[in-house]
Formats: sequence, structure tokens, C-alpha cells
Amino acid sequence: MVKPIERTLVVAREGDRQVEREDALAVEEPLEIRIRRADSGGARTFVTTMRTPGNDEELVAGLLFAEGVLLSREDLLRLERPADPRIDPEVRANVMIATLSPDAGARGEKLERATVMGSACGVCGKTSIENVIPDGAPPLVSSLRIPPEFLFTLPGRLRESQSVFSKTGGLHAAGLFDAGGHLQALREDIGRHNATDKVVGSFFLRDALPLSNSVLMVSGRAGFEIVQKAYSAGIPVLASVSAPSSLAVELAEAGGLTLIGFLRERRYNVYSHPSRVLPE
Amino acid sequence: MVKPIERTLVVAREGDRQVEREDALAVEEPLEIRIRRADSGGARTFVTTMRTPGNDEELVAGLLFAEGVLLSREDLLRLERPADPRIDPEVRANVMIATLSPDAGARGEKLERATVMGSACGVCGKTSIENVIPDGAPPLVSSLRIPPEFLFTLPGRLRESQSVFSKTGGLHAAGLFDAGGHLQALREDIGRHNATDKVVGSFFLRDALPLSNSVLMVSGRAGFEIVQKAYSAGIPVLASVSAPSSLAVELAEAGGLTLIGFLRERRYNVYSHPSRVLPE
Repeated sequence: MVKPIERTLVVAREGDRQVEREDALAVEEPLEIRIRRADSGGARTFVTTMRTPGNDEELVAGLLFAEGVLLSREDLLRLERPADPRIDPEVRANVMIATLSPDAGARGEKLERATVMGSACGVCGKTSIENVIPDGAPPLVSSLRIPPEFLFTLPGRLRESQSVFSKTGGLHAAGLFDAGGHLQALREDIGRHNATDKVVGSFFLRDALPLSNSVLMVSGRAGFEIVQKAYSAGIPVLASVSAPSSLAVELAEAGGLTLIGFLRERRYNVYSHPSRVLPE
Repeated sequence: MVKPIERTLVVAREGDRQVEREDALAVEEPLEIRIRRADSGGARTFVTTMRTPGNDEELVAGLLFAEGVLLSREDLLRLERPADPRIDPEVRANVMIATLSPDAGARGEKLERATVMGSACGVCGKTSIENVIPDGAPPLVSSLRIPPEFLFTLPGRLRESQSVFSKTGGLHAAGLFDAGGHLQALREDIGRHNATDKVVGSFFLRDALPLSNSVLMVSGRAGFEIVQKAYSAGIPVLASVSAPSSLAVELAEAGGLTLIGFLRERRYNVYSHPSRVLPE
């Protein structure tokens, strides 16, 4: 079992005092994600990402779902480590093989090629948004309404549930709350997007998407990709303790998602679709 | 000219008060980096990355240097936007074409294939470090010595030099200080690694690497890739306001780099090679 935290010796300085003592480190290791089509032979490397070990199945499912490779639970047939006994156990712990339906496998292969070839005409914010919300796709629909007091409690609840280590800033956290304010899932990871992929992946694996009556709270800032992941999972409200980006706001606006930033103590900013959090 | 900051309207809530007001957003837009070998024809997409517009030439140079595509200034022959007048100006602003020496071009193409194919035997932390520091490569050599008081001043100096917006957490910052404590370069970006790539890229373009007598200070945490970028640029001391990861510490240890974390007010932890910052 790989541990998410390692111990190390540090020289700790405080003003004029200096001591050597133990300190905790978030473990960062690469994870190679391979995909295999059920109707063909070998597995191909889809991507290698740095992550904190733990909940790897959720990370793979969440990442492949966010990338649009997996559209439904049926697309994912199997998740496993390499079986070859000659493979070093340390390496095996850093590889996951996802066996996909033929359709999902084809989407994965197409995406690999797209990454390599790029689009012929370059890119811009507008096309980035169109890639997520294709022509005519409806924005998120959710009747969820939450009062400001509900939002004020989220940072504290997320922090309470984080590990001691994560509270020190060693890990990113993502928490999913239901409409009653109950924490449904909390995941922590060194990678800024991985914690969100793991949360969404945990619901994907239980075939419990979309999350139409939920609020996702993240410990970092809200960039384009975090909004994309929330939108794909059908989450209507995304709250962050820090700043959103321009493209994140544009995507949230186009996708019908309520985007909240700088949620700290008893304040926040709403950047899009504020009607879901207007006072009663 | 693309601006790094955009204005938007937000619903701002503080306790029981709620107002609609203007707020600033860090601009996030994709940048497509294409590479072209001087001895062949067309340009190929190397990678597309989200970034805050500005200093794109530095970002491209720094990223290609950190990835090991560019080894020396002579490898980079030209940096330009697409010339085709039919291309939309908004798209053109998000594409950079780098013309490379034949050797550098070959390295870039090999890396593209490696990303797609993956290694045959999977990955682990140990091989990640061996990729950065190949067998027998010597660790960083630098006679730089800095007293604790020097380090205590860095967070304040970085913050003073940041834009007002960046101070609010909207952008990541990376600053390079010389041995006298003078700020040599400061760059800000929404992308966690881009600010560092821009700093290193600015020196690469002036053919001023390695930076053997410098300290790099970053506003975020120190993961594997930030240490890799500092190591490649020959920077012997890397300081971060937040936590390093396990693999970052292992790489710094192996590469002869002094890694400092949690540098705030008058305290810090040294995770590797502390002799460069021991008190006089």
C-alpha cells in the first residue's frame, strides 16, 4: 500500500533559532494511464500525470470522463494494474489499465491524435469553450437554490474534514456537498485537478452522475479546467477559496454554472448565474 | 495587445451586505506552441498550454528548454506568430512558432512520440529523477552562500514587486534574485509553472544561462516540475512559500539543489543541501 505522506528530516529555522526535526511531505508519484479497447489487443498509454497515490481508480475514471473519453458507466469495462509478474511492484503501483467499450476506445485514440496534431487553425478562448459546450448543447439545468449562510459554512466544513497535513497547504482538497450541506465526498491530492477528478470519479464508478443538486468546493483557484470538470459532471455550483480566471468565468456563464470565488469567512463573489444564491 | 487582466461584474457578498461591483480577472487563454525544424518544411504542434498572455516568447523558450528540446541558445533560430493573413487575429495571438536547429527539432519530435507511446515498462519516481539527471550527471555546483536574514526578506520583496492583482492570489509569481538580493526578473501567470518558465526563458533568450548564483522564489508550492526547471537552469537555491512534494525533495537532493519551503515571515524549512544557508 502506497502512503500519501512521507516523513523527512528538515532544518527548521524560526528567527534566530534553528533545529533539525521531522516533517511530513505529500507524496508525488507519476501515474501512467493506459487504455485498451475491448475489441482489440494491447493497451496504449493515454497520459502520464503526477499525483498523490490513493484512489487511483477514481482518478482514472474521473480524468477519462472529464476528457470526454468515457460518456457513461458502461464505457468503462475494467480497471486494473498490469498483470505481468516481471514488472517491478513499484512500477505496477504507478500504472492503471482501463479497458473501454469500442466507442470509448475510439474516442480516446482520436483524442491522443488531436493532442499530437493540434487543430489546423490554432486555438482561442472561444473555441476552447465550444469544445466543452458544442453548438446547441443546453446549459446546466438545476433547481438548486442555496442561501448565503450555506456558503459561509463550506470553507470551515471542508477544512475540518481535511487531513491535518492537507490543512498546512501540502495538498489540494475538493469536497462535494449535497443540498442539505452534508459532505458527500472529500479527496486530497498534490495535483491541482486530481482532487476534483477523484471526487467526480467516485460518483462515476457508482453510476451516480450527474450531480445536479450538489455544490463542489475546491481549496485552490478556479481555472478553466476545474469549471469544465464541474460542468461535465452536471454540478450547478462551484465554489473556490481563491480567484477564478477569465476563461473560467466565460465557460461558467455559457454553461449555466454558478461560479463563486474568494469564499472566505463571511464573504464571497459570484461571477456567473447569481440567481441560485440570491438571498431568500 | 492582449491584456493580462479583464474586468467583470460580480455580485459581492460580505455578511448581510450585497452589492454589484466591478472585479478584476486574470486572463487565461490557450497558447499553441508549434515547432519547425530548420531543415524541413511545416510546423507541428508540440503542446497547447493555458497561460496568461504576455511574454509568450519567454514562455515558449523556457518551456522548450525545461523539456530538454532546447539545449543552448543556438538551438532556437526564430520565434514568430503565424504569417498567414487569413488567420483570425485572436487565434494568431494564441499561437507561437519556434524554428529550431535540426538537432533540437529531432529532440522535440522524439519527445512528442514518447508522450504518446509512453515507456514500455511504466514509470516510477526513481525513473522520473533519472530522466532529469541521467546516469553520472554531476549535481549542481555553486559556491553561493546565503544567510537566513537574506531569505527572510524574499517573500516581502516578491510581494512588493507583484502587481496589485497578483497579490490577491489571482496569479502565480516567480522571482529571480541575485546573490546580493536584487530582483533580476519577475513574471506572473495563471499557470503554476508558466511564471517560472517565463523567468528562465527571459535569461535563455539573452543567452545568460546557467544562473549559478541565483535564488528562485515562487509563490506556490514546490512540486517535482518546478525543481526540474530550476535544476535545468542551474539555479542552486529554490524557495517556496508553501510545501514541497516528496519527489521534489528527492530530485533536489539528487541534483545538488537547496530546496526551501514554507518561507513566511521569519521562518522556513530547508529540505535538501542546507549547507548553503547555514548561519555564518
